[in-house]
Amino acid sequence: MCQVDLNSDLGEGFGNYTLGMDEEILKYVSSANVACGWHAGDPMVMEKTVALAKRFGTAIGAHPGFPDREGFGRRNMAISPEEAKVYMKYQLGALLAFAQSQGMRIQHVKPHGALYNMAAVDEKLAAALCEAVYDVDPNIIFMGLAGSKMISAAEKTGLRAASEVFADRAYQDDGTLVSRRLPGSVIQDQELAIRRTVRMVKEGRVTSLQGKDIPIRADSICVHGDNPKALEFVKAIREALMAEGVEIQSLRA
Amino acid sequence: MCQVDLNSDLGEGFGNYTLGMDEEILKYVSSANVACGWHAGDPMVMEKTVALAKRFGTAIGAHPGFPDREGFGRRNMAISPEEAKVYMKYQLGALLAFAQSQGMRIQHVKPHGALYNMAAVDEKLAAALCEAVYDVDPNIIFMGLAGSKMISAAEKTGLRAASEVFADRAYQDDGTLVSRRLPGSVIQDQELAIRRTVRMVKEGRVTSLQGKDIPIRADSICVHGDNPKALEFVKAIREALMAEGVEIQSLRA
Amino acid sequence: MCQVDLNSDLGEGFGNYTLGMDEEILKYVSSANVACGWHAGDPMVMEKTVALAKRFGTAIGAHPGFPDREGFGRRNMAISPEEAKVYMKYQLGALLAFAQSQGMRIQHVKPHGALYNMAAVDEKLAAALCEAVYDVDPNIIFMGLAGSKMISAAEKTGLRAASEVFADRAYQDDGTLVSRRLPGSVIQDQELAIRRTVRMVKEGRVTSLQGKDIPIRADSICVHGDNPKALEFVKAIREALMAEGVEIQSLRA
Amino acid sequence: MCQVDLNSDLGEGFGNYTLGMDEEILKYVSSANVACGWHAGDPMVMEKTVALAKRFGTAIGAHPGFPDREGFGRRNMAISPEEAKVYMKYQLGALLAFAQSQGMRIQHVKPHGALYNMAAVDEKLAAALCEAVYDVDPNIIFMGLAGSKMISAAEKTGLRAASEVFADRAYQDDGTLVSRRLPGSVIQDQELAIRRTVRMVKEGRVTSLQGKDIPIRADSICVHGDNPKALEFVKAIREALMAEGVEIQSLRA
Repeated sequence: MCQVDLNSDLGEGFGNYTLGMDEEILKYVSSANVACGWHAGDPMVMEKTVALAKRFGTAIGAHPGFPDREGFGRRNMAISPEEAKVYMKYQLGALLAFAQSQGMRIQHVKPHGALYNMAAVDEKLAAALCEAVYDVDPNIIFMGLAGSKMISAAEKTGLRAASEVFADRAYQDDGTLVSRRLPGSVIQDQELAIRRTVRMVKEGRVTSLQGKDIPIRADSICVHGDNPKALEFVKAIREALMAEGVEIQSLRA
Repeated sequence: MCQVDLNSDLGEGFGNYTLGMDEEILKYVSSANVACGWHAGDPMVMEKTVALAKRFGTAIGAHPGFPDREGFGRRNMAISPEEAKVYMKYQLGALLAFAQSQGMRIQHVKPHGALYNMAAVDEKLAAALCEAVYDVDPNIIFMGLAGSKMISAAEKTGLRAASEVFADRAYQDDGTLVSRRLPGSVIQDQELAIRRTVRMVKEGRVTSLQGKDIPIRADSICVHGDNPKALEFVKAIREALMAEGVEIQSLRA
Repeated sequence: MCQVDLNSDLGEGFGNYTLGMDEEILKYVSSANVACGWHAGDPMVMEKTVALAKRFGTAIGAHPGFPDREGFGRRNMAISPEEAKVYMKYQLGALLAFAQSQGMRIQHVKPHGALYNMAAVDEKLAAALCEAVYDVDPNIIFMGLAGSKMISAAEKTGLRAASEVFADRAYQDDGTLVSRRLPGSVIQDQELAIRRTVRMVKEGRVTSLQGKDIPIRADSICVHGDNPKALEFVKAIREALMAEGVEIQSLRA
Repeated sequence: MCQVDLNSDLGEGFGNYTLGMDEEILKYVSSANVACGWHAGDPMVMEKTVALAKRFGTAIGAHPGFPDREGFGRRNMAISPEEAKVYMKYQLGALLAFAQSQGMRIQHVKPHGALYNMAAVDEKLAAALCEAVYDVDPNIIFMGLAGSKMISAAEKTGLRAASEVFADRAYQDDGTLVSRRLPGSVIQDQELAIRRTVRMVKEGRVTSLQGKDIPIRADSICVHGDNPKALEFVKAIREALMAEGVEIQSLRA
């Protein structure tokens, strides 16, 4: 029996600001990455997001990012592995309190934005993040870019790793993502994106930008709920997967 | 056998800034209140402070404050009970991760500065803080001003309460502190301060500013390690207590 | 010839977050209160907002608030007059740079949210804010609640004061606003709100909640552009004023 | 007649935290780089620092940095030129208000920490910073690393540039600093450091790490006042320069 997780970033509002369509997207995903109050989110939003996920029966994970609210955690910052480690602990711990107080468990951790991108290629950074998670709770799953340093670091550390794939992104021959700055990096054709995703999940293979058939592991698919169009795509990809006999399940299931 | 806890605020440095003589004061206290990165402290400092407390065998507690680093959490802020609740969870959770990852347990929580002063007299605020702690972990002890709303709220919530007294402060007939703005609020004579403290601990009584002999519960004594003179006072009070047969023990002991 | 200013809060977005319909509301108002990056706004937003106001020929003012982004500057904070003074300078200066670099002048200053409400009744706080503005540039107009301590403090300091009125709020016999917590504080009937506003502008009088006819000075009317309905109201009030022969002009005109 | 400026970073305290020996170092320097509340400093500190510089007759300059208080502005951040431009405006403007309100003028701008290091080698970043300064006030002097992109960008923009040299650092053949990570980057011998500095000022030449005699322009020398030993060095370098007939003068003099 084939199954896959659908994950989305949630709880990205802040103070007087709202962002995303959390209640809508929660109907379709099996895992919610909850912002931890650094690049986005705040304690009020975290409390509410955990409650919402609980109501929908969605698994939750910590979504820690850089201390850069202005830049939404999307700007590279030259932090040391020691800083990465304690930044992870801090944000994971903060979410832990909201989960614990509502009788929820933290299923996974997935770094956000620039931290995710940097850790995908920086072994030391990835290791620091994984060690922090392991030290806090070795049962937490580390979600990262399929084939990246995050996956190898998680396994080395002793954490269960979850490989994340992107429905609408092109891949290199070596399984890494084609940079957004390059032509062809984003799959514009929705039908094609869905077919590729189904194949990644069912066959563990995808066609690279260069036209090569390469292996890829897809434990979880990243989807977005920022706007009505994005929601439509999530619905479509979900239906296509189910029609192909793939179950949508959180990572633990 | 008579015993009392000595507590001090630690981990109040931040980034490039140092504050306090943490390594020195840790030799004398039984409980450390660790700043949680809002009014003071940061993840690097928290990690280091927990490690330091572990090395000295000192019990640790969360020391959450207002989101007001500029004001060091000493300025009143009109937050709602809902905000107080999630602010407590967030900061307590953050410290939880550092404790858990180093094999330490959080013994207690003690609100900081203006949050402490406001919760001492505001029943709803005190209740919100206590509920947050209870929901995260009902075994954590809530430390608050002796005789204040924090103590009654903690007991009502089902938390164990620890009554804190101040060696160098005058008390009203009703057991509350004399405001710092009033004459006589601070006991300048160190010998007198020490004698008063010993009596609070051994007899549970103190002479109010008005000259009345009143009951007071002293589970913990607040001491400071900001400067060499403060350290001398801690040493003196510690020796006086021990000479009187009082054991210095953390709250759990 | 009768004239009045219409002012609105703008530039309240932040980083990845948008707020308000700045481009729409700018068609109708004569003065824009620009958030200065503390309770709302950021340098990117400030640059853009000043450019937008310049394009529409709208006068700009600084809209400084508390250092409380989580609370959008709406929570009272117990800051000292000294702190208020330097907080005002800092935020006013920041906007000054954006104005100066785009060839714009700062017409006015209007405190935001809780700072506005506190300064309306706190003489020392109001004086501190006014002195800061005067020291930076004595030609800047201080906009505050009609009849409040801000108006008297501005005049005492030597600043030109601009009295602000609210179209949809009820007034006490003494000319102060009825608290939002009390019944009848908000005028729900739009027609009535508009009639009251026209009368405040043309006759300098309004009927208090208690039914008394009281004098009120209306140099500027506060309007909002948060949603399409608010925009409709601004259009309606603008048209009603113009139909009554009132010119909509910025404060300097 | 030969002259040179001595500059030092000041006003780096924050809230409850003090840093540096501002009152001491002000006796010896001719220019003070004032932190603008992002990587260090706050409005209270800025007000006080400007007053202090005024009292000592020291010229002041803005010392803007990254929005990274935890990292003291010392960690590289991948900001865009547009962001750099408005970040410069914001911080420069903030200081402008404190200067203006105390009857002081801003003499110069010198980027801080990682922003300084990045702008030294990144032409677009340097240009963005210079344009921001020029747009706010074209009379402000841009201080940057001698021979770096900051100097060329300032001149291109139409700003007067001031070339900064370091007494205790080794230089490459091309006039750039030897990275701190390389051996020999820091001149440990104080006598040698002073002799080199005097020669940079009087002859405009220095011996590179590779032993080559290279031209270098020294409009200003960077000195530190963090500790008593640093202060001693400043006194020594100052005396050596004066003994050699070099006047210590601010940039404008």
